[in-house]
Amino acid sequence: MQIMEKDGVVKAQFEENELKKLTGEVSHVALDIGGSLIKMVFFCRDNNCSGHEHGNKSSKDTNGLTNGYSEYPVLKGKLHFLKFETKRINECVEFMSSKQFQSNGGCFCKAPACDKNIIKATGGGAFRFADLFKEKLGITLDKVDEMDSLVAGVNFLLKGVTGEAFTYMDGKNEYVQIDQNDLYPYLLVNIGSGVSMIKVDGDDKFERVSGTSVGGGTFWGLGKLLTKCKSFDELLELSHSGNNRVIDMLVGDIYGGTDYSKIGLTSTAIASSFGKAVSGNKELEDYRPEDVARSLLRMISNNIAQIAYLNALRFGLKRIIFGGFFIRGHAYTMDTISVGVDFWSKGEAKALFLRHEGYLGALGAFMSYKKDGLTDLITHHSASEPPKNLSNCSTVQDLNENGSIECTFQLSNWPV
Amino acid sequence: MQIMEKDGVVKAQFEENELKKLTGEVSHVALDIGGSLIKMVFFCRDNNCSGHEHGNKSSKDTNGLTNGYSEYPVLKGKLHFLKFETKRINECVEFMSSKQFQSNGGCFCKAPACDKNIIKATGGGAFRFADLFKEKLGITLDKVDEMDSLVAGVNFLLKGVTGEAFTYMDGKNEYVQIDQNDLYPYLLVNIGSGVSMIKVDGDDKFERVSGTSVGGGTFWGLGKLLTKCKSFDELLELSHSGNNRVIDMLVGDIYGGTDYSKIGLTSTAIASSFGKAVSGNKELEDYRPEDVARSLLRMISNNIAQIAYLNALRFGLKRIIFGGFFIRGHAYTMDTISVGVDFWSKGEAKALFLRHEGYLGALGAFMSYKKDGLTDLITHHSASEPPKNLSNCSTVQDLNENGSIECTFQLSNWPV
Repeated sequence: MQIMEKDGVVKAQFEENELKKLTGEVSHVALDIGGSLIKMVFFCRDNNCSGHEHGNKSSKDTNGLTNGYSEYPVLKGKLHFLKFETKRINECVEFMSSKQFQSNGGCFCKAPACDKNIIKATGGGAFRFADLFKEKLGITLDKVDEMDSLVAGVNFLLKGVTGEAFTYMDGKNEYVQIDQNDLYPYLLVNIGSGVSMIKVDGDDKFERVSGTSVGGGTFWGLGKLLTKCKSFDELLELSHSGNNRVIDMLVGDIYGGTDYSKIGLTSTAIASSFGKAVSGNKELEDYRPEDVARSLLRMISNNIAQIAYLNALRFGLKRIIFGGFFIRGHAYTMDTISVGVDFWSKGEAKALFLRHEGYLGALGAFMSYKKDGLTDLITHHSASEPPKNLSNCSTVQDLNENGSIECTFQLSNWPV
Repeated sequence: MQIMEKDGVVKAQFEENELKKLTGEVSHVALDIGGSLIKMVFFCRDNNCSGHEHGNKSSKDTNGLTNGYSEYPVLKGKLHFLKFETKRINECVEFMSSKQFQSNGGCFCKAPACDKNIIKATGGGAFRFADLFKEKLGITLDKVDEMDSLVAGVNFLLKGVTGEAFTYMDGKNEYVQIDQNDLYPYLLVNIGSGVSMIKVDGDDKFERVSGTSVGGGTFWGLGKLLTKCKSFDELLELSHSGNNRVIDMLVGDIYGGTDYSKIGLTSTAIASSFGKAVSGNKELEDYRPEDVARSLLRMISNNIAQIAYLNALRFGLKRIIFGGFFIRGHAYTMDTISVGVDFWSKGEAKALFLRHEGYLGALGAFMSYKKDGLTDLITHHSASEPPKNLSNCSTVQDLNENGSIECTFQLSNWPV
């Protein structure tokens, strides 16, 4: 587990040391088990918060705000984010069976109405690994649809988290506060191992309109074969110091340094990704892995941006939100995507990124706890910066440095 | 130079042995110098045809057809097609300076009005290598715009050549005769090193609406790095016996063998190209080059099909014509493109292929001889199968086995 602080953008990664400091009660774990990564979201109650006792009918939390649903307790704490590699799923299982989760298990908790053996899970792995969780932990994975989860996760973040969305261009990120009344429609582009493109028209109104198999798994998979990098992060790091012009065939390489001005292609535009590897007698070992990684990142980012734009155009969507673990706050990725969207749309469409981009599905699965009558997550505004239209969602008061989200819960099914 | 006869589709490649047999007069050479390949088209007069003498005013050709422009001679012969690798441009230069071309140079010929030192050329290399041709051969390349050439080449083929266009699906190719009155609009997708997508609305009415850098150069470049193949054709050959499921992450790999039926993805759909290379400890050497080549071909073909479809959709085009040297009549490439277009368009759009797919630009440059007043190429119908609307183009009577096209010329500037 790593903190990602790249190019001034603090990303939502959970720090291992931070984890050890957790002393509060852990509850409501949700998983998104993808092809490459397992993403986990869980709530950890602050030790010192009031209104959290079983059966407590207090209508005030520590901030002294009156709670509309006074018969239910308010839990104050943080949402935490954690990831594991899917191929190392045993680490995830071990973590969940660890003392931390066992003794303080939350929705595996003190409430009799609450079945501690069921947790929400989404992603293909919720199907694939259902037996493993049952066998090793005695836990049943309650499967939540992948697209439902992604959309619920993004909507939660856009509505509830101040400073969540931002644009990235020319090395600068700019936070964007989206007007809640002007949120829909948008195109969600979730870049995991593969890419899903979802047109979102409302809270629960959406359609998967497109996708591509050229995604994060392609970058990592091809990158691993080409560079022998041991991890996705290492490959990203490597690409940072590379020069794609060594391997990409540019318009200028074909036109002898001149632009192809008639169709608006400058001499530095990429005519053919990896096209320069064709000429000469160079083999893989003759190229610097940095340059290979850079060309690969640029090819894939650019391609996703283009397909996203074409789909946004199809449905007249001006706002394209990019999520998924591929991006990881990496400047060059975001820059290429932003430039791609800007180029193809002639400035009409805008690429937006999210601080918790990798946890959309897991957050959505987490949100689904409120849907099945087991638990209700109630809006609770921060007095200083009240979100405008939080429809029955968790409140987010702050986004701290390691990416965890401060929030409060109200549990409707808490026994009284 | 090779004959490509794959899967029952005879492709327009020029055979070296065939070249040696040429005894007729060579004239009107045109070049398309791309990032990876140089494509050449030239006319070679039959030895035994009449009406070809300098100053001959005969109004009849060998078939006895009356020619409307009786003051001009009719030359009967064949259009021939030849390719060289751009990195081996000296082979092309040597070929052009060879006895064959020197002694029989055509538009470098007996006609005083005809400047033998100027030949039509398109593609970026017409700029890049202009000095080289001047220096080595004393030839000036008369540059013809790349997009103009591509469109002129396709229109010539679609209007004039019987059995040129075909669909390919499930291992079967089906020739399509397009009604000349229903030719436009169509989307031309030319897959060279990079990919250009051109909306064609009429003979000279078109617009380059999109493109992608993930093209033939990407396949060959990445493929060379990954498999150590020595040529594009070798890589294609290799892919034929590969299995992409070894490296691609399928929906079933993520969902444990089940479909993601809610959004219509079957378990065998590719979720992430090269995504399986992420898991396990396999390195490049542990994969069969065949499987790598297959995954690569599928990724790129699929991606081009998708972007092409999205652009066709944008402009309401039902017919998508794929050309360029990437395809080479390769069954799996055409099948993936066809299936991709069919899948994304829900059967609404159709992928069409061309027998002379690799020579569109060169043919278009060749056609441009008629535009500059130097030479006029006059329609001359085959009696048995008259094309309906040949607007001042060469006549094509047949397409022989090695891909050359039988035709007749009429030269308006032939001195009388």
